[in-house]
Amino acid sequence: MDPAALERLLLEVQTGSVTPQQALRRLRDLPFEDIGFAKVDHHRALRRGFPEAIFGEGKTPAQVQGIVGRILDRRQNVLVTRTSADVHALLLREHPGAVFHAAARCITIVSTPAEALPGRLGIVCAGTSDIPVAEEAAVAAEFYGAEVDRVHDVGVAGLQRLLNHADSLRQADVLIVVAGMEGALPSVVGGLTEAPLIAVPTSVGYGASFQGLAALLAMLNSCASGIAVVNIDNGFGAAHLAATILRKCRARP
Amino acid sequence: MDPAALERLLLEVQTGSVTPQQALRRLRDLPFEDIGFAKVDHHRALRRGFPEAIFGEGKTPAQVQGIVGRILDRRQNVLVTRTSADVHALLLREHPGAVFHAAARCITIVSTPAEALPGRLGIVCAGTSDIPVAEEAAVAAEFYGAEVDRVHDVGVAGLQRLLNHADSLRQADVLIVVAGMEGALPSVVGGLTEAPLIAVPTSVGYGASFQGLAALLAMLNSCASGIAVVNIDNGFGAAHLAATILRKCRARP
Amino acid sequence: MDPAALERLLLEVQTGSVTPQQALRRLRDLPFEDIGFAKVDHHRALRRGFPEAIFGEGKTPAQVQGIVGRILDRRQNVLVTRTSADVHALLLREHPGAVFHAAARCITIVSTPAEALPGRLGIVCAGTSDIPVAEEAAVAAEFYGAEVDRVHDVGVAGLQRLLNHADSLRQADVLIVVAGMEGALPSVVGGLTEAPLIAVPTSVGYGASFQGLAALLAMLNSCASGIAVVNIDNGFGAAHLAATILRKCRARP
Amino acid sequence: MDPAALERLLLEVQTGSVTPQQALRRLRDLPFEDIGFAKVDHHRALRRGFPEAIFGEGKTPAQVQGIVGRILDRRQNVLVTRTSADVHALLLREHPGAVFHAAARCITIVSTPAEALPGRLGIVCAGTSDIPVAEEAAVAAEFYGAEVDRVHDVGVAGLQRLLNHADSLRQADVLIVVAGMEGALPSVVGGLTEAPLIAVPTSVGYGASFQGLAALLAMLNSCASGIAVVNIDNGFGAAHLAATILRKCRARP
Amino acid sequence: MDPAALERLLLEVQTGSVTPQQALRRLRDLPFEDIGFAKVDHHRALRRGFPEAIFGEGKTPAQVQGIVGRILDRRQNVLVTRTSADVHALLLREHPGAVFHAAARCITIVSTPAEALPGRLGIVCAGTSDIPVAEEAAVAAEFYGAEVDRVHDVGVAGLQRLLNHADSLRQADVLIVVAGMEGALPSVVGGLTEAPLIAVPTSVGYGASFQGLAALLAMLNSCASGIAVVNIDNGFGAAHLAATILRKCRARP
Amino acid sequence: MDPAALERLLLEVQTGSVTPQQALRRLRDLPFEDIGFAKVDHHRALRRGFPEAIFGEGKTPAQVQGIVGRILDRRQNVLVTRTSADVHALLLREHPGAVFHAAARCITIVSTPAEALPGRLGIVCAGTSDIPVAEEAAVAAEFYGAEVDRVHDVGVAGLQRLLNHADSLRQADVLIVVAGMEGALPSVVGGLTEAPLIAVPTSVGYGASFQGLAALLAMLNSCASGIAVVNIDNGFGAAHLAATILRKCRARP
Amino acid sequence: MDPAALERLLLEVQTGSVTPQQALRRLRDLPFEDIGFAKVDHHRALRRGFPEAIFGEGKTPAQVQGIVGRILDRRQNVLVTRTSADVHALLLREHPGAVFHAAARCITIVSTPAEALPGRLGIVCAGTSDIPVAEEAAVAAEFYGAEVDRVHDVGVAGLQRLLNHADSLRQADVLIVVAGMEGALPSVVGGLTEAPLIAVPTSVGYGASFQGLAALLAMLNSCASGIAVVNIDNGFGAAHLAATILRKCRARP
Amino acid sequence: MDPAALERLLLEVQTGSVTPQQALRRLRDLPFEDIGFAKVDHHRALRRGFPEAIFGEGKTPAQVQGIVGRILDRRQNVLVTRTSADVHALLLREHPGAVFHAAARCITIVSTPAEALPGRLGIVCAGTSDIPVAEEAAVAAEFYGAEVDRVHDVGVAGLQRLLNHADSLRQADVLIVVAGMEGALPSVVGGLTEAPLIAVPTSVGYGASFQGLAALLAMLNSCASGIAVVNIDNGFGAAHLAATILRKCRARP
Repeated sequence: MDPAALERLLLEVQTGSVTPQQALRRLRDLPFEDIGFAKVDHHRALRRGFPEAIFGEGKTPAQVQGIVGRILDRRQNVLVTRTSADVHALLLREHPGAVFHAAARCITIVSTPAEALPGRLGIVCAGTSDIPVAEEAAVAAEFYGAEVDRVHDVGVAGLQRLLNHADSLRQADVLIVVAGMEGALPSVVGGLTEAPLIAVPTSVGYGASFQGLAALLAMLNSCASGIAVVNIDNGFGAAHLAATILRKCRARP
Repeated sequence: MDPAALERLLLEVQTGSVTPQQALRRLRDLPFEDIGFAKVDHHRALRRGFPEAIFGEGKTPAQVQGIVGRILDRRQNVLVTRTSADVHALLLREHPGAVFHAAARCITIVSTPAEALPGRLGIVCAGTSDIPVAEEAAVAAEFYGAEVDRVHDVGVAGLQRLLNHADSLRQADVLIVVAGMEGALPSVVGGLTEAPLIAVPTSVGYGASFQGLAALLAMLNSCASGIAVVNIDNGFGAAHLAATILRKCRARP
Repeated sequence: MDPAALERLLLEVQTGSVTPQQALRRLRDLPFEDIGFAKVDHHRALRRGFPEAIFGEGKTPAQVQGIVGRILDRRQNVLVTRTSADVHALLLREHPGAVFHAAARCITIVSTPAEALPGRLGIVCAGTSDIPVAEEAAVAAEFYGAEVDRVHDVGVAGLQRLLNHADSLRQADVLIVVAGMEGALPSVVGGLTEAPLIAVPTSVGYGASFQGLAALLAMLNSCASGIAVVNIDNGFGAAHLAATILRKCRARP
Repeated sequence: MDPAALERLLLEVQTGSVTPQQALRRLRDLPFEDIGFAKVDHHRALRRGFPEAIFGEGKTPAQVQGIVGRILDRRQNVLVTRTSADVHALLLREHPGAVFHAAARCITIVSTPAEALPGRLGIVCAGTSDIPVAEEAAVAAEFYGAEVDRVHDVGVAGLQRLLNHADSLRQADVLIVVAGMEGALPSVVGGLTEAPLIAVPTSVGYGASFQGLAALLAMLNSCASGIAVVNIDNGFGAAHLAATILRKCRARP
Repeated sequence: MDPAALERLLLEVQTGSVTPQQALRRLRDLPFEDIGFAKVDHHRALRRGFPEAIFGEGKTPAQVQGIVGRILDRRQNVLVTRTSADVHALLLREHPGAVFHAAARCITIVSTPAEALPGRLGIVCAGTSDIPVAEEAAVAAEFYGAEVDRVHDVGVAGLQRLLNHADSLRQADVLIVVAGMEGALPSVVGGLTEAPLIAVPTSVGYGASFQGLAALLAMLNSCASGIAVVNIDNGFGAAHLAATILRKCRARP
Repeated sequence: MDPAALERLLLEVQTGSVTPQQALRRLRDLPFEDIGFAKVDHHRALRRGFPEAIFGEGKTPAQVQGIVGRILDRRQNVLVTRTSADVHALLLREHPGAVFHAAARCITIVSTPAEALPGRLGIVCAGTSDIPVAEEAAVAAEFYGAEVDRVHDVGVAGLQRLLNHADSLRQADVLIVVAGMEGALPSVVGGLTEAPLIAVPTSVGYGASFQGLAALLAMLNSCASGIAVVNIDNGFGAAHLAATILRKCRARP
Repeated sequence: MDPAALERLLLEVQTGSVTPQQALRRLRDLPFEDIGFAKVDHHRALRRGFPEAIFGEGKTPAQVQGIVGRILDRRQNVLVTRTSADVHALLLREHPGAVFHAAARCITIVSTPAEALPGRLGIVCAGTSDIPVAEEAAVAAEFYGAEVDRVHDVGVAGLQRLLNHADSLRQADVLIVVAGMEGALPSVVGGLTEAPLIAVPTSVGYGASFQGLAALLAMLNSCASGIAVVNIDNGFGAAHLAATILRKCRARP
Repeated sequence: MDPAALERLLLEVQTGSVTPQQALRRLRDLPFEDIGFAKVDHHRALRRGFPEAIFGEGKTPAQVQGIVGRILDRRQNVLVTRTSADVHALLLREHPGAVFHAAARCITIVSTPAEALPGRLGIVCAGTSDIPVAEEAAVAAEFYGAEVDRVHDVGVAGLQRLLNHADSLRQADVLIVVAGMEGALPSVVGGLTEAPLIAVPTSVGYGASFQGLAALLAMLNSCASGIAVVNIDNGFGAAHLAATILRKCRARP
């Protein structure tokens, strides 16, 4: 029952053409979902506050184009992840503002930039091969309004490079730590910092890395407390969680 | 908002003390859950129509006793699965009607027997070690009102024993097929019959059976169409699904 | 021993040229298979009542074409699953009635439509990427004579969309629930409905979805009773099982 | 080189008994660790701000007692997880303030309660068997100063029970969602709320749950964005991460 | 239809009270299984020619005793595997001829020794911990009439001990090779000999042996051709297969 | 030390230019391998008696051509497995007798046919997709001199087709049973026959077949005794083992 | 703080323009990393003493070219692993001294050959398919200055070929043993030799080799003591470890 | 053929009673193993130079006692690993010199201490729960004559504790690094040092550590070059390998 219909029913009660008991019966017979829908939908719109991203992998350029069109019709910003220069070229024809973030394999179309989130997000990655996942996280987080500090290529076997960034890392309000292979970086960063830390295993590696399983298991078993893990290569998911944490943060002074 | 409150609101609209617009605002702000609750709950009571079973594994006799008490307070029949003679002895003190089904490791307390379900349920198992799981299924199905035909110990390596029961199996309206080790029985039974078939892998075996994984994978890959699988050793779950199918069946002539 | 030979033997008994004891010996020495064959074959024809489908994956267009020809020779309807527009183009040359169901990746050639099955089949899927598997199930079920209600794209993270279809789902006599990623939809749908429920995990996902293993395990461990699971992406198998259940159903009023 | 030694060296430079070049050489030869130590250690003390917990599993009562003594010597509060009434009885002899949280299997000894953290932590669990893990999270979070709202036994197959708590869940600033079996609850809760969500798989289940692996994989593959996962049964780890997030939160109005 | 009934039918044909066509109809309607039963059963008795063994693991002493009694009633020899001295003590009370093979964890009761099989069976094992499995194979094979040469404790890391037995191994007609840990022995023995080789992985090992999985995988991937593998710890199965091969062998000169 | 050198040494002992003690010292210092080599090599030549096959997978046509040339130089017959029509076309240029067995994906070049092995080999496969593996086994076995009976496409879900071949199967001296998906065929065939049985799992299947793992585990857990298993898709290995068994067989009467 | 800045500070202390206490404060506030950096970096340069190799897999030719340029700018030798003739062709344009090691899939550009390492490195591989990994190890080890003895194609099923090289193997100071399939070679070589042994599993195999998992597990479970294992196909890693061991060795006499 | 027999044969050649050709024939027919045995055995005794250890797990105290007796009869030192105080108590009765190393769960009986190995062995472990494995390595290495530096409880999440030991670690000639959970320590230590590094995963952890699998995989995928891995919890194996490396080392100055 849409609000207009509900209003009509209430008017009929007011005018006496429907008794309260009759109205009650009709309301009680409504599938509660229909009443709930508008409200939840409203909640849904408010809820995460972040426009949904399009997961580009396994979609044809035309499919991505179609979804992009529908999102833009709703006057929302667009983020496409796991995509390519080809898709970008196609989108550019109709949407000259489409930007391709090559390192992140992402496309953004932003008409009204997102409101700035409080706090700072530090994104750290272990090796150069992990950069695509780290950049996916960075581009997504910036799309959501986060201020991002990037620290790339600080693997645990070259500790000094990491230690040189320790103070910078300690200034982050949330940390995303991206690593493949043995997935040890979150433990080390977690031991040096105090912010909430989201670990992202990557499929970087070969042989007994089993496409990221080794890094995933390592991160789940981290000896540093206060670490949680997202799916393998899921830079976007980490950024989304980081944005929900930043939104809770006190404003930056 | 409970119905009484809702009725009061509608009366206020009728008497004019609340305008339809005000009522609409208040209704829109209601948590939809509260409206929905009664309805869904009612659905829930009707829904499966089968009293819930108590999964006895990992519960102390006292815990089982407590839950049994609460169920009996609601005047429902009781089914405890994965239980033992010890628990039965404890229950007997207060509930002299408690019956222990040793082969099935189940206890039932039935005041009003369930209404008979239409159709027949055939329960087939491969080896004598699979009987506890098959009997759990049988006892549960009978508890729900099903008529059960048991065919035990008809492994695929002794085909003739199975073939001797083929006509009987073909008269079942639903089949539960229980097997450990290589889990091949559902494929063979599925090839001989036409009723819906629920396969139950058991943890019977050793070494590369990996506690039922071999049987589970075999059943999921059955070359016989029209087979679905439940969790390892989950005789109860198979019986529950079988009962929902039988309930749909035409009455036995 | 074919029936003619058997009849000749019985005539010889009748005329006295073979004694009953001699006939008994000859019958006893027969491979029982030969006697059984015709009967079982007859049973087989009756048995499932559903023409077999052709699993197109890994077959060349020419191989599919050959099998289709043999099935049409027997004047049966044809269903090809996991196939493509290319195969369809090839079949169209000889069989103008061949229909390609693109979303389902299926081809059907139906001369005499299947007799309508009683009851209704609800097919629910979690995300748009799961639609090919859900549609494979839908096309196969319709091919077998089922009336199908489709509910697409009702993932558990957007509960309201699902709840809006709850009443419709409750009217189904059998449910097929298709989901990849975390495979949670069957548990939620199972909690809202009372019909037998067949869960189909899909290979949709990446990283730790391990090509559908995550969804498969989740469904096998569903906390909702009365759920069984088929192989990953096996929409056809679910439809086949659903059809065997519907066949048992009371006719729709 | 401790600060005093460093100061002495600088004094020697000032007085001229050591040239700057000599001092530089001595500083350059220092193991950098010694310099860094005090600072890092200081950082370390400040860093997480939360006293370390004692993981009781696999430790003898005497070992736990020993560690507890050393922590109390530093005048810190004590939290022991995965422990038992026996260990509690032992600790009570010397520490009459030791409290045993039976449902959580935790012991706390609190002399100066932790400063209250801003925000609210919602802890939701799917089944009664998951309560020990949920309570471990709750007790640990309260130990760290969090205000905790508990929502127990709201499995996804009984959706209405969960929906009844939706508004309460929406008021949480951080959510911990605990589930075994198919691990679907985080996806559903994540779809209803907007706070950062930490998912905790439990080892509750049997057969193909593989001691929590099914729930773990499901949570890693959640279709709800903004979810991260900790190790199986790791209620403490989730609480620790939640506390680091709450510490970042704006104060409650 | 049992033979007597069949004979009666044929007599009725002979006497003319049943026409051949009537008899044909009745025969055609018979479940073929009933006709087949006697024959197949007869086949079954002949078939493997080896009395079935009792798998003692998971059976109570009383259950083993019961099965032993039924086998002895049929005047067959008895072999119990995976059993213990306790079971032996129980059996001794009624069956003074029961022999306990401690190293093999087997019990035999032999009234009429099996006919000697032609050829020789070589049983080789890698380490002393593998001896129980090797002895289970040896005792079972001897029970079936095989002549067994045992070569124990010839691991691949002490090659010379193995090479010292090379000539003896080359005289075997069938080889059973038992190994845990890295499971390399079958490859090495297979390279030195020409007889059919049955590899038995054992669960001996720890850590990454994963209860025999490492040895199982190694044996399945053996670079020596002409090797097949049985389940982990399945000494009995290997002996059974070896006996079926020996039975085919030319008699020893 | 080659035989000529050894003979020279012995001549020097005979002629007195070397004392026995000096000779002994020189012999003792010899790497024993060099003495052993000739003998073992001789053994090796005799040993398996079967020319080695070339595993074509992952080798370029030129590499296969090179190895084929070296084998033909030794005047041995050639068998290439896992190969293609392209390789055959290349080989045909120099070796007009090269035969391509398309269904088996094998090439043979036979100048002197292998001596006929005694006994019969039955090769059974479950589905048409398993035929390439079954034919690899058949072509290899024939190459080694075996007489092969092929029984194709007798899956366990269509039992009657299998039973019709039961007598034929019972005449085999060795059986190779090939099956993918649930891998149940060896158990059923093993229950109907008495010959040694080699089970070959294939990678046929999808989803939870995990490239043949399901079939492999099923076969390792077969409830039929006397079955052993080779690697997934390893038709050649099964044929090699079968040939070593047949060589032991009594000659066919 | 770079050394120059530190020296300036110390001069200011000497001249009295900065008090020791002020200097101490400034030193204490320094990120210790900056002080440590030079030192550690220096350590780092000295540390392994071996120029880093470029892992070519997954890098474009242009990316490899860029990294090669930067390394050559530092006047270091270049080693590219997992690369191809195409990359070599590209590098040759600017670096005429680039050498392609086809069997090893490596490129080296050596201006100043590495100092010879003491001792000898034996590299043994099981089959011809393992040669690429063995050669990667050999080329890398030679690049680092090792003297390498290659023993190829000595699988455990042809023991005599291996035994012929036993004396040569015994002269190695370090051994690298490379094997796929069942991974048994390290155990056998380890039993024949006394040098430290590094085992390298390869992904050679199919079916249940699971891309090298079988070999990896076998090697981890080796019954020969004194063996350690590197990642699947990681010839380079084995060579690197071998070089660090050789560097410790006594000089060859 | 034992040396005496060989000498007799050579004497017969010298005296002419056997021709060189006859002698050659007899030598050629010898099983090469018998000649080789003494030599290889001699080699074997020399070879590793380290007395074998007794793996106590799964052996009864009496079995250990028996093996200890046989080793002492050969006047060798005794090392029992994975043992207990009970076994020690038993051994003490006959061998008053038996020492129990409680933390290492080892017993040693040393009459003649092993010759000191050159170089230093550093043994590092991540957490206190890893100490039993680290101590097993330490006790075994000392038993073999190594000088051991222990660095315990330096997990990667408390980096500073580790860095404080960096200089000490850099003085080791070989490093053993022991860690459970995420297994990150070898990567970090490997990045700080230049000695050969042996990584030992432990089964310390719970949930997704899968009894050490997570640590094992992490170590195999270490981004630090020059690391090799032994089986889970295999402290002894690491010590054995370390001892073979130290034996190669230049003497300490």
